[in-house]
Amino acid sequence: MADVKLFGFWSSPFSRRVEMALKLKGVEYEYIEEDINNKSPLLLKYNPIHKKVPVLLHNGKPIAESLIIIEYIDEVWEGPSILPQDPYERAMARFWVKLLDEIKGEEREKNKDEAKVHLKFLESEINGKKFFGGDTIGLVDLAANFIAHWFRVISESVGLELMTEDKFPNLRKWVDEYTNSSFVKENLPDKDKMVGFYMTRYQAPGGTKCFPKV
Amino acid sequence: MADVKLFGFWSSPFSRRVEMALKLKGVEYEYIEEDINNKSPLLLKYNPIHKKVPVLLHNGKPIAESLIIIEYIDEVWEGPSILPQDPYERAMARFWVKLLDEIKGEEREKNKDEAKVHLKFLESEINGKKFFGGDTIGLVDLAANFIAHWFRVISESVGLELMTEDKFPNLRKWVDEYTNSSFVKENLPDKDKMVGFYMTRYQAPGGTKCFPKV
Repeated sequence: MADVKLFGFWSSPFSRRVEMALKLKGVEYEYIEEDINNKSPLLLKYNPIHKKVPVLLHNGKPIAESLIIIEYIDEVWEGPSILPQDPYERAMARFWVKLLDEIKGEEREKNKDEAKVHLKFLESEINGKKFFGGDTIGLVDLAANFIAHWFRVISESVGLELMTEDKFPNLRKWVDEYTNSSFVKENLPDKDKMVGFYMTRYQAPGGTKCFPKV
Repeated sequence: MADVKLFGFWSSPFSRRVEMALKLKGVEYEYIEEDINNKSPLLLKYNPIHKKVPVLLHNGKPIAESLIIIEYIDEVWEGPSILPQDPYERAMARFWVKLLDEIKGEEREKNKDEAKVHLKFLESEINGKKFFGGDTIGLVDLAANFIAHWFRVISESVGLELMTEDKFPNLRKWVDEYTNSSFVKENLPDKDKMVGFYMTRYQAPGGTKCFPKV
């Protein structure tokens, strides 16, 4: 059996989405929980540039950055496709993923107006579809994981403005579909534990309303 | 023949790298120069979210974002591989490309110290290699196009601090190898025209020292 290890952190949507990709493919792996306040020498060794989870270790070789890890998993292991097979559809999936990444940055830098304009395009993209991947969960759904977090947890704990406004009914519908699908449900962190975690972070000195980078 | 059109702008390293990818693959295409001060209705139609060049139109279907376009080109057309064939090497190439993207952002937001730390990792990655792609130009070289621009043009026209310091001898060597390779030479914009262009932008009211997004 291939030697697969994942360094993660329980509340991070970035390590959770990698776990979901591994599970979608049926890959067996060892999970190593990191203490993000006291990162392990191994994590720093395997991700010296960003010093962040998630890191996937496959046969001793490390890969960082959740979405790059997911593309790797999709290419290396058999099982349901996470990216679309058609090159044009694949390009479109990567385009939405990049936009989601930009929205995350805009939210962090408090460019709320820009984030809203971009969310509107996603709102229209998901219209009439169950998942971004169509009938099944795909790359864009995993990338949009953090939006489900916003809706479910952060908006509740810190009253995040962006998603509490009632401007994104399709995205809300997607969050419901996504977080209630049995596969995702099994893989989401406990909601009460999450709310407590973000409350503490938010209220701490130097705490931030922004979505944390871990 | 497939119907391929590229909407670009002569001095943009982002549209230039897409052109280079098309040429590496030997794809015939029609080039459409955009006036970035007065963008065409077609560009706005094909890239309504970012309203930017480059946009590739293939059989009437638009793709935006230069690096996504390059992965698409590599997947759709035969010819020399732009991404490595091995999945792990491919993940690494995508990792460096993402880091380059972050460096561009850091430079724009004047996080010079962070940009320098990240450039140091690239400096060490290119050590002993002719190109990031090994003996031939690959995805990471095309992604690093803008660094060649910094060295060659912007540092000359506006005295950009970051790259004028003598801390990146390997990257400088790469810039020489890259910009002097006959393929790249044919595809780089005219240096004097570029220096003039950036001088004007820099000295204009509201002008910026940062690398322009076009």
